[in-house]
Amino acid sequence: MKRIAFNENLFQQMFKEKQSYVERCLHDSFARIKGYPPIIHEAMHYALFNGGKRIRPILVLEGARLAGGKPEDVVLTACAVEMIHCYSLVHDDLPAMDNDDFRRGKPTCHKVYGDAVAILTGDALLTAAFELMACNAEVPGIMPQNVARAIAEVAEAAGSRGMIGGQVIDLGTEGKKIDYATLKTMHRLKTGELFKASLKAGAILQGMPEDKLQCLEDYAYNFGLAFQITDDILDVKGDQNITGKPIGSDEKNRRTTYVSLFGIEKAWDMAEERIEECIDSLRDFGEEAEFLRQLACFVLYRNY
Amino acid sequence: MKRIAFNENLFQQMFKEKQSYVERCLHDSFARIKGYPPIIHEAMHYALFNGGKRIRPILVLEGARLAGGKPEDVVLTACAVEMIHCYSLVHDDLPAMDNDDFRRGKPTCHKVYGDAVAILTGDALLTAAFELMACNAEVPGIMPQNVARAIAEVAEAAGSRGMIGGQVIDLGTEGKKIDYATLKTMHRLKTGELFKASLKAGAILQGMPEDKLQCLEDYAYNFGLAFQITDDILDVKGDQNITGKPIGSDEKNRRTTYVSLFGIEKAWDMAEERIEECIDSLRDFGEEAEFLRQLACFVLYRNY
Repeated sequence: MKRIAFNENLFQQMFKEKQSYVERCLHDSFARIKGYPPIIHEAMHYALFNGGKRIRPILVLEGARLAGGKPEDVVLTACAVEMIHCYSLVHDDLPAMDNDDFRRGKPTCHKVYGDAVAILTGDALLTAAFELMACNAEVPGIMPQNVARAIAEVAEAAGSRGMIGGQVIDLGTEGKKIDYATLKTMHRLKTGELFKASLKAGAILQGMPEDKLQCLEDYAYNFGLAFQITDDILDVKGDQNITGKPIGSDEKNRRTTYVSLFGIEKAWDMAEERIEECIDSLRDFGEEAEFLRQLACFVLYRNY
Repeated sequence: MKRIAFNENLFQQMFKEKQSYVERCLHDSFARIKGYPPIIHEAMHYALFNGGKRIRPILVLEGARLAGGKPEDVVLTACAVEMIHCYSLVHDDLPAMDNDDFRRGKPTCHKVYGDAVAILTGDALLTAAFELMACNAEVPGIMPQNVARAIAEVAEAAGSRGMIGGQVIDLGTEGKKIDYATLKTMHRLKTGELFKASLKAGAILQGMPEDKLQCLEDYAYNFGLAFQITDDILDVKGDQNITGKPIGSDEKNRRTTYVSLFGIEKAWDMAEERIEECIDSLRDFGEEAEFLRQLACFVLYRNY
């Protein structure tokens, strides 16, 4: 593997700083969209401030940085992609979908507010995401045509040909064995596309040229694959106290995973290859890309 | 009442032409967003082509016309607001919400595709709406900053402080008596805001100045109120074969309506007053506003 030094302490420090920044931005953005009636905004708040890792908004900010722009100028879009991620979790957890009572150790939105309000909470977070992205056009220095392009990019990634499409494939193949091609497509749509759109959206807003956008697309594609493979590995050998998820749930639910198809060792090699590709895709970027390189390594070595 | 001649035959002819135009545009727009996997796009198609009156997209087109622009240049946004309307119907009909098996004589989306796919179908229509609106920025002559503003306007109207908020109030007051102020707020949020945003979005895209936008806002506000009042009247004295809805359902469900609060005659007077306000708000617009004047009269005299 084309190794780069993974400085875990330094990475964790940078990651925590970025997470805290996103958390503050999410509070500010949420203040823009909250109002009457109170109950729906309370439920949106519950779903949004749920202890998430905030990877997608951090990708938006890093995309802007690599384009040579100020990350602060794209925070509304960063918050928007996190709202989209959170809405998808609220809807996924519903009784009609995965029927989960807990997420990260807390009762899911519909357990607290009921199914009807949970459906509307997801809808409202999704709608708020696009309101915030549109408001990004008011930031001086951000060109409105880039805002429109970023919105189209994120909507396509989150919609029926992206995240929702992946969810539909997942539902339709539940309990069935699927082949590698289907598994790969499902995960690319379900998680990869929104990672890609997040990183690209920040860069698009700051006017990155096409050839460089392609490099970010390569990074995000491989990042998404590696993320899923290590997710499957963590389901087998993770520590429930750290991951917050019950171990062995994939096998219990007879889910096809990278581990069930290839075994742990081969799956690990595949994840390593993907991370190598991630690092390689950033070759034309200098110091500014260091966090993204370390983030890729983190995906490989993470225990949560 | 400040009467204007309602030429029903002429209106119906114009209305049908506009509906057919919107229908063709919806097919074209849908072709842009459909793809893999097939099942979700089939369900989206089912929910979208459902025999709706297409009032909201027509308002977008008329807003553009009043701004002196070509309605053809805002069709993507027109289609988008109809997708938002249709997504709201799919989610409203779910077992966790109104639990309706039929809509306009056809089985509801979740009866055909199941609850999980129906939830995702609503999500996908909502997401596609914003993708289409963002793509409106590619139309020559449409300024990207106006696209961003129109998206913010529509998102606010459809979101937690608008349509979804109204739905939450409706859910929270089910079976309870509510006062006039709550009734009015609920309907303004639930239907009025999206009417308003539709008419304004078309005008914003075509660069209408603020003072004139205020006139459109007044029209839409009163239009929405009159629409709801006549809806309540039709529930009492409409013809089920024409409205497509069971008569007397409001009373059966002990819903507070304009009729239950004021009686039919007074409710009718209130609707007339609102339509008078609609006509008055268009006083600075000439011939181009004739369809909107006739549309206001139609709301009063409609039997479906």
